[in-house]
Amino acid sequence: MFEDNLPKTSLSELGEFGLIDHLTRFVKTHQPTTHKGIGDDAAVINHEKEQSVITTDMLIEGVHFDLAYTPLKHLGYKAVMVNLSDVYAMNAQASQITVSIAVSNRFPVEALEELYAGITLACDTYKVDLIGGDTTSSRSGLVISITAIGQVQTDKVTYRSGAKPNDLLVVTGDLGAAFMGLKVLERENEVFKVNPNAQPDLEPYAYLVERQLKPEARKDIPQLLEALKVKPTSMIDISDGLSSEIIHLCRNAKVGANLFEEKIPLDPAVISVCEEFNIDSTTIALSGGEDYELLFTIDQNDYDKIKGNPNLTVIGHMTEEKEGMHLITRANQKIPIKARGWNSFEDANDKE
Amino acid sequence: MFEDNLPKTSLSELGEFGLIDHLTRFVKTHQPTTHKGIGDDAAVINHEKEQSVITTDMLIEGVHFDLAYTPLKHLGYKAVMVNLSDVYAMNAQASQITVSIAVSNRFPVEALEELYAGITLACDTYKVDLIGGDTTSSRSGLVISITAIGQVQTDKVTYRSGAKPNDLLVVTGDLGAAFMGLKVLERENEVFKVNPNAQPDLEPYAYLVERQLKPEARKDIPQLLEALKVKPTSMIDISDGLSSEIIHLCRNAKVGANLFEEKIPLDPAVISVCEEFNIDSTTIALSGGEDYELLFTIDQNDYDKIKGNPNLTVIGHMTEEKEGMHLITRANQKIPIKARGWNSFEDANDKE
Repeated sequence: MFEDNLPKTSLSELGEFGLIDHLTRFVKTHQPTTHKGIGDDAAVINHEKEQSVITTDMLIEGVHFDLAYTPLKHLGYKAVMVNLSDVYAMNAQASQITVSIAVSNRFPVEALEELYAGITLACDTYKVDLIGGDTTSSRSGLVISITAIGQVQTDKVTYRSGAKPNDLLVVTGDLGAAFMGLKVLERENEVFKVNPNAQPDLEPYAYLVERQLKPEARKDIPQLLEALKVKPTSMIDISDGLSSEIIHLCRNAKVGANLFEEKIPLDPAVISVCEEFNIDSTTIALSGGEDYELLFTIDQNDYDKIKGNPNLTVIGHMTEEKEGMHLITRANQKIPIKARGWNSFEDANDKE
Repeated sequence: MFEDNLPKTSLSELGEFGLIDHLTRFVKTHQPTTHKGIGDDAAVINHEKEQSVITTDMLIEGVHFDLAYTPLKHLGYKAVMVNLSDVYAMNAQASQITVSIAVSNRFPVEALEELYAGITLACDTYKVDLIGGDTTSSRSGLVISITAIGQVQTDKVTYRSGAKPNDLLVVTGDLGAAFMGLKVLERENEVFKVNPNAQPDLEPYAYLVERQLKPEARKDIPQLLEALKVKPTSMIDISDGLSSEIIHLCRNAKVGANLFEEKIPLDPAVISVCEEFNIDSTTIALSGGEDYELLFTIDQNDYDKIKGNPNLTVIGHMTEEKEGMHLITRANQKIPIKARGWNSFEDANDKE
């Protein structure tokens, strides 16, 4: 992504401290809780809410992203989203992040500037403060490790473990688009390798590609739930695919679940591109991953509060544990739900 | 370090979730502030003190460590120390860490168990809770990214920026040993490559090697300072060498400094091994790095409170900014202090 006409400044020209200063020179803070950001041994955070949540995720070149079709600015943005999504999944609001980056000498400073442009765009958009980090060299490839901190009132924290039988299973947004966006990008990359002059027409796939390259975390959902006066009984973010996350909610709460295939929200673009690729769209929603939507359970008594909200879809309900976890198909067949989500230790090509 | 007789279980046998469960199965918590640790989208922390500090560091194989002479258990321990040292440098107490690890398939599960054994030993020894993290595959090599959280009262936080002219410059422990330990290990590794049957006698270098492989962060210093009723005007941890850190304190506070060569605390083992390697010991103390001691400034009125304490050595004093930063040698020469610490973007062999 940086083999273009950008000027190239080698990392060693700036040195480690110079690089950090250079990359963070435009960092602004938004949060009253950020007492001291970048520039000391550690950042200092004040507490307004009773509790903090903290989460961390690492993205590795060649495992989680391929720079052949991932612009660095998008990558920086997405790396922040991956972490914020985990904060929102606690029903908390994200307030700060730290960013550590390891990068080989093949990256010029300008490439890191692009990456940081994406990170700071995400911070500005989500009103999250970049308060620290580490920048170092790697022997090969790019590694991004982000830790996100959020603030939450004690009575609002939502774990993976609180679902009860008969609770409704609710998902935000729609599923499967990010995975099909990846499929489209991989296909275009193969075409490009054969014919570098081919001009891909990604227009029909714009939504899918955007969901893959520039996902948005659901900051709005904890706010919406508060406005609706709904406290979910459990919540998790959908990073590994719907099946895997349903299994987490069930195992943590020792309950079962029935998921109704016909209720799974799919964008029309997902349905049409699944036909084009000859892939079953339900399978993609169940196992595709990277949707960064939220999956939660609510008490049935709260149904009226969420009914008809375009952000929320009831896709099933929880059951007694002994009833197991099942997908109820459109043909009314009952199929056990198995985890087929992302496992970075398997060959990435095995994951479908 | 794992080409020995240990059993070998491949990472893909356990999978990503199985691996996390496996590696963290013995994790205990120590801190009352740890409300929810590993096992959800994020960890949850309660607040007892008004402020938290947060810091993060990344260690990369081939850049920060060489597995040819770094046992994985020691590496795990050290990776925690590197981060805790930054927390203590804020005059705070460390309470929680998150650990993210990326590892290639050449590492068997047993190797990661060793690494985690070191991490959990550090956590148990320092009463710090491992509350989350990420474990993923890498295409090559091992990456460890740790974020540490600490708790501190607002009036105790100590920044890099508070030094005033005439403040005393104080260092904990002794300097240069970790770097000379590395030199010894590198030499033995070269000998080993030529003659794999050579039995190294590291006994005379035990202190140096331990300082390199198993450093201890100065948890005791914030406690000691509190007991002595001393609040440093500024503080920093010495990870990059004394010169580099003095420059940080001076630049952040817009002051100068005089450092007295004869006052720099050196272990006798450092002096003798520097003679053996024909290296100037002052240069090593100034630029060696990885000492994980604390450097701080105090008001002159506090001198009586720290006088004679075996953990603390006054090595100089701060001056007006225009007087610059100087080393006063034993021969009473005044030499400008330059940063010659660690820069991972230069060839590691250039750093002396």
